[in-house]
Amino acid sequence: MQHFYINDITSMEQRFRARFINSLSGFKSANLLGTVSSDGITNLSIVSSAFHIGANPALLGVIIRPDSVPRDSLSNIKQTNYFTVNHVSSMIWQQAHQCSARYPATESEFDSVGLTPEFIDEIAAPFVAESQLKFALKLRQVIPLEINGTVLVIGEIIHVVCPATSVQQDGYIDIESLDTVAVSGLDSYHTTDRLSRLAYAKPELPSAFLDVSGEEIALQRKVASE
Amino acid sequence: MQHFYINDITSMEQRFRARFINSLSGFKSANLLGTVSSDGITNLSIVSSAFHIGANPALLGVIIRPDSVPRDSLSNIKQTNYFTVNHVSSMIWQQAHQCSARYPATESEFDSVGLTPEFIDEIAAPFVAESQLKFALKLRQVIPLEINGTVLVIGEIIHVVCPATSVQQDGYIDIESLDTVAVSGLDSYHTTDRLSRLAYAKPELPSAFLDVSGEEIALQRKVASE
Repeated sequence: MQHFYINDITSMEQRFRARFINSLSGFKSANLLGTVSSDGITNLSIVSSAFHIGANPALLGVIIRPDSVPRDSLSNIKQTNYFTVNHVSSMIWQQAHQCSARYPATESEFDSVGLTPEFIDEIAAPFVAESQLKFALKLRQVIPLEINGTVLVIGEIIHVVCPATSVQQDGYIDIESLDTVAVSGLDSYHTTDRLSRLAYAKPELPSAFLDVSGEEIALQRKVASE
Repeated sequence: MQHFYINDITSMEQRFRARFINSLSGFKSANLLGTVSSDGITNLSIVSSAFHIGANPALLGVIIRPDSVPRDSLSNIKQTNYFTVNHVSSMIWQQAHQCSARYPATESEFDSVGLTPEFIDEIAAPFVAESQLKFALKLRQVIPLEINGTVLVIGEIIHVVCPATSVQQDGYIDIESLDTVAVSGLDSYHTTDRLSRLAYAKPELPSAFLDVSGEEIALQRKVASE
């Protein structure tokens, strides 16, 4: 095993360190953030920093770096109070990555990379038509993180669109069946294979295996109790 | 496609909604958070909310829900100012999940689930010996999120341990080769298969494919430019 001490980290070449540190958190979500400016120009940026904050109310957070590509996103969100989050699947991962190129603010990434904006109801942000799981959020809070100048944007999930068949009887959404991809580092994309779902853990018992629908798998429980 | 409106979300049964909303952000990292109390009792909790905040300084954030299982973690972090983050691999995913059971504060999850605490140098937090990629953080900031009572803990990465062979020439760490798993929802664990790495995106060009080491794959560039 190799050890990297704080001095090793601070003395790394800048882009080397960016790739190294971005690999540390583990696999990340791959999402397209959809927004529109008050002038009506749609914007799409790829983010790997979307994370769950709470289920009731349903809150999602995204870290945005104001001085990098998604600055149009932040400006648009502040203007309209809305944004969408669209899962990146193995059908659109290359177009999604291409959204990280520095297109001018007057140019829509939808056109540049070949994805289709889709407006639903009165929501002032475009969905990605090609995405199989997508949702709209209303801006709830913008928290500047003074420690490094990034911004935590918190939105409340107000509208979810996905295939009915992907939602299991217990509420779990089978995002693997939707071909949602995972990201590692800055630029590596991955499909997934399910090991299993596991039952709610209790101190006295090993966790039972669950099938995708949340039903306990009898054989596994039998093995575990032998 | 099925549409879930805000009223559908708020009227979901509580556990159904928790599984549903937790599925929305996409694939998540699976990490074990290692801490120790001032009494010397080690603690291990599984978190799927660790996320990258910045590379310079190297900052990682974790969302902790004070009223759920990892409350010992937060208390320990505040006491010692240190914590570790340890990747969950396909060798230890069942033990890792078992750490979410509500063990009493006087009992170490290391003992309960059968993982080995490992102390390195003067760092006041235990690593997981069985984890193939792990790092220590010094507490930098605790930000209460008043919107739902959760807490954002920000740490600075001060010491990284991983196999030398997993670190590529350009800084990317091949976490797939370390069998790091991804999580979806509350309880589903997944291994991964790399689609490809992609070169830094530029407006005028489709992104070249990169091999795991970051070298452009000539064939793919040829195909893309034809």
